[in-house]
Amino acid sequence: MSEKKKIVVIGGSAAGPKCAARARRFDQNAEITILQKESDLSMASCGYPYYVGGFFDDRNMLVSTPTGVTRDPKFFLNAKGIFAKTDTEAISINKNDKTVKYKDLKTGDENEIKYDKLVLATGAVPNIPNIPGIELKGITTLQSIKDADYLRKIRDENKIKKAVIIGGGLIGIETCEALQLAGIQITVIELLPQLLTFLDWELAKIVENHVKSKAANVITQNPVVEFLGENGILKSVKLKNGTELPCELAVLAIGVRPNVKLAKDAGLDIGETGGIIVDEFLTTKDPDIYAVGDCIETTNRISNKKVHAPYGDLANLQGRAAGENIILGNNAKFPGTIQTGICKVFDYSAGATGLSETAALKLGYDIITVINASPDKPGFMNGKLIISKMVVDKKTNRVLGVQCIGLGDVSKLISQAAMAILGKLTVNDLVNADLPYAPPFSLAIDHFIATSHIIQNKMRGLFTGISTKELKEKLNNGEKPFLLDVRGADEFEQTRLGIGETLIPLGVLRKRINEIPKDREIICYCKISLRGYEAALVLQANGCKNVKVLEGGIMVWPYTKEK
Amino acid sequence: MSEKKKIVVIGGSAAGPKCAARARRFDQNAEITILQKESDLSMASCGYPYYVGGFFDDRNMLVSTPTGVTRDPKFFLNAKGIFAKTDTEAISINKNDKTVKYKDLKTGDENEIKYDKLVLATGAVPNIPNIPGIELKGITTLQSIKDADYLRKIRDENKIKKAVIIGGGLIGIETCEALQLAGIQITVIELLPQLLTFLDWELAKIVENHVKSKAANVITQNPVVEFLGENGILKSVKLKNGTELPCELAVLAIGVRPNVKLAKDAGLDIGETGGIIVDEFLTTKDPDIYAVGDCIETTNRISNKKVHAPYGDLANLQGRAAGENIILGNNAKFPGTIQTGICKVFDYSAGATGLSETAALKLGYDIITVINASPDKPGFMNGKLIISKMVVDKKTNRVLGVQCIGLGDVSKLISQAAMAILGKLTVNDLVNADLPYAPPFSLAIDHFIATSHIIQNKMRGLFTGISTKELKEKLNNGEKPFLLDVRGADEFEQTRLGIGETLIPLGVLRKRINEIPKDREIICYCKISLRGYEAALVLQANGCKNVKVLEGGIMVWPYTKEK
Repeated sequence: MSEKKKIVVIGGSAAGPKCAARARRFDQNAEITILQKESDLSMASCGYPYYVGGFFDDRNMLVSTPTGVTRDPKFFLNAKGIFAKTDTEAISINKNDKTVKYKDLKTGDENEIKYDKLVLATGAVPNIPNIPGIELKGITTLQSIKDADYLRKIRDENKIKKAVIIGGGLIGIETCEALQLAGIQITVIELLPQLLTFLDWELAKIVENHVKSKAANVITQNPVVEFLGENGILKSVKLKNGTELPCELAVLAIGVRPNVKLAKDAGLDIGETGGIIVDEFLTTKDPDIYAVGDCIETTNRISNKKVHAPYGDLANLQGRAAGENIILGNNAKFPGTIQTGICKVFDYSAGATGLSETAALKLGYDIITVINASPDKPGFMNGKLIISKMVVDKKTNRVLGVQCIGLGDVSKLISQAAMAILGKLTVNDLVNADLPYAPPFSLAIDHFIATSHIIQNKMRGLFTGISTKELKEKLNNGEKPFLLDVRGADEFEQTRLGIGETLIPLGVLRKRINEIPKDREIICYCKISLRGYEAALVLQANGCKNVKVLEGGIMVWPYTKEK
Repeated sequence: MSEKKKIVVIGGSAAGPKCAARARRFDQNAEITILQKESDLSMASCGYPYYVGGFFDDRNMLVSTPTGVTRDPKFFLNAKGIFAKTDTEAISINKNDKTVKYKDLKTGDENEIKYDKLVLATGAVPNIPNIPGIELKGITTLQSIKDADYLRKIRDENKIKKAVIIGGGLIGIETCEALQLAGIQITVIELLPQLLTFLDWELAKIVENHVKSKAANVITQNPVVEFLGENGILKSVKLKNGTELPCELAVLAIGVRPNVKLAKDAGLDIGETGGIIVDEFLTTKDPDIYAVGDCIETTNRISNKKVHAPYGDLANLQGRAAGENIILGNNAKFPGTIQTGICKVFDYSAGATGLSETAALKLGYDIITVINASPDKPGFMNGKLIISKMVVDKKTNRVLGVQCIGLGDVSKLISQAAMAILGKLTVNDLVNADLPYAPPFSLAIDHFIATSHIIQNKMRGLFTGISTKELKEKLNNGEKPFLLDVRGADEFEQTRLGIGETLIPLGVLRKRINEIPKDREIICYCKISLRGYEAALVLQANGCKNVKVLEGGIMVWPYTKEK
């Protein structure tokens, strides 16, 4: 009988345990050990903001199986035959001896373990800005379960009144919601001109307006330059423009970087993104060392560029593939990511898959985009608005990316789009897609199919769109297009852009066609630009040569309105 | 200047108006006329059950635009320049003269209209069983807006106590919910052994149990043979086995058939499904006559067989394609359907896309299937169970179909699956799919991806599953497999199958391995068979040769339980 295969996995959060468990499924005899620096294992780290926000109170739910069994070393041993050493830090790797030196953080004892195959799942570490006052008490991240415990305690004690969130990315926004729900007054401070950079500016701006409507302040392009304190305790943050914001808590959420110290020290290759370089089988340059999860770089499947994509779902899939490969030999490929993500923003959701317009242009694609604002379900079934933007490659007609925000079912839309991108579907494929329709679930023409209809019309010249941003620039440049709002008079009374528009409801447009300056550039819109589109067709039929539709209509106007 | 093109569309529900509106977008000068037998236009007919059920009260929402404008002849004329003649029945088509004879149902006047292109959108008619008493008052369908008005009145009057629904398909189940919500005691009577035939039996059975749990009775395989009445008014229905069910209302929902009388009389070809035969451009054998919507047959894109697929979403897409073709010439293809559908069943949803196991076997595919029962989201975010079944073609590894039921997000799962089938994705593609993950929306490994993991394991022999149906047959045949429930003792106390099982919780299985009869067939399970699967691996590692996992576990057991 051959020796038992020795598997060592460094890291016990998501990718590590998944890899260990998968290896076990292929080899019931292997000796599998997880070295985990923290006290907990298999933490649902993406759930931290919801624990902090009080969506649930039982901390054990973060570290237990669906049936409530805590995923502790005993569970791993009994249920999976895996040795999980918690509070145990891996210190160094010796590739020649195939050993890992580790330290018991409770006793201080150091020890060594042999491996046949080693898996690095060392995760990522939060970026910490190098600015004065960073050592003050009251500054934290929301990266570890200890951070979650700290912030949850703040919620439960209910003493803190004001906090700032530094960074308006995914974690920043989730933390903003969590702490706002804890009754704390929040300001989100973002260095860039927008929140959530997986969205293009105009959609991010609508999300920003929504965050503000929930009584959280948002400041962009004005970074924190100093933390100010008294007796070692945070009292305020100072912004670049000199503003001082009083606060008792600051949460740093300016991204994470791969934790590659061990790998680097062991002489493994680190890529330009900062992540460990692995091949499609998750092997590092040492064939006996694999790496998975937030510590590696992976491939964007659309651009074929390397990216750092620290997502919990990908970590699990990478762990699954590597777990097979360390037992069976390199067999299971991990093909990379299309960078699909989603985020709850109070009662809004915001998600994206594939390339944004910004990303696609940077990569040199010749693209066409469209914005569609329409309900997810019929009005009589309480449909809620979603606003999506589709990016299509002109050369191949393929969908490169979709982003979506709104009160409605964003998660379904992004899921549909992710599968469409995975299937390399073109607009022509999508216009006749067969999706599940019934009024409790969708419109007769699903939002996603409708978006493909609009972009097909646009590509064929049946529809000339103009984005809110393009229109705003036109107006800023002093251009004077004829702006035609085709809603009803009652709607116009309730809300309007106030950018010099003329109101002619669609129903009477044919009759009042003589009021239209046929030789000018005309821009039509309504609430979501469905009637705006109809109006454009009427105008074209009546000899107007330069007619555009404001894509998404008033609902996607990110700037201030007259009323 | 050339003559205006004359377009005539017969039918004003879904496909017809969509076709007319699309044609207008390509030709602002065409003379477009819709002949509509009913008084309403563009009715959201899929919304009728929800109007009857009181989800909303404003009938106008069924016939108005998202902004509340009624889609009446005035709207069609003013907003789209389309002549819509309501209460107008097309009587005959003269292909040689290219004319349609029609009758004004209010005045009785007959008239003729010329066409250059004619579009048939004559819809479907409900099947009416030819059994005694069918003429009694109190028997209706839920097909037309008049039917909806009639049933809504019954709801509002609140007099009727008992009703039967004849037919347990989509419309039958939706009507069951609507009338149950109206406070009426319902019995659903289905000729076949199961409800909702787009589901395989074992999933349909779970839906049936759910319907019963909502206090609606369900009777299968015992059809109505007679309607009994007094003074012309329905009093009861008599079933084949002699049972008489008192009721004051009977709703017939035994399917619809294409309404092809006009087409047939005009000598157009009718297919074996009963629908008008059209090519991929929606042209009948007369190049100047098109047909769209519920009156045609279309192609199943997986099997390439002809099917009658009367779905509102497909009707719209067909109308869109035909609307282009009648103006530009045959250019826009309608490729067919994968028969995606979904249905609300009280707080359950039930949906399917592609082929069921039953359908795939009938078509001769060599398939593998799996059932996955797991929550749609983490427990700490209030995840709800969904049960899905995937059907995969062994030869190509392609997903042929997915069906799903449950309290959770069925609509998203079926949408993902429909896009996957459209993209011809294989199990190997799906195992590394990149879907939007965050705890408010999904598990870290999305239900759909997890299902592909299980089926991949099954195909590779890492997992041997047995369905509830197979196990039940085994037990009925007197076989005695060792049945191993690996849940906790508390769970076992709460609910259990009671089929002779032994309880050994997963956590202590390794220790108690000597209690296992290694040479017998062993079938493991738990609540959803996740722990059941882990247990199977442990048993195999300990020398058990014939271990199976009960797919989906206790949650998918459709038969009676001990407790």
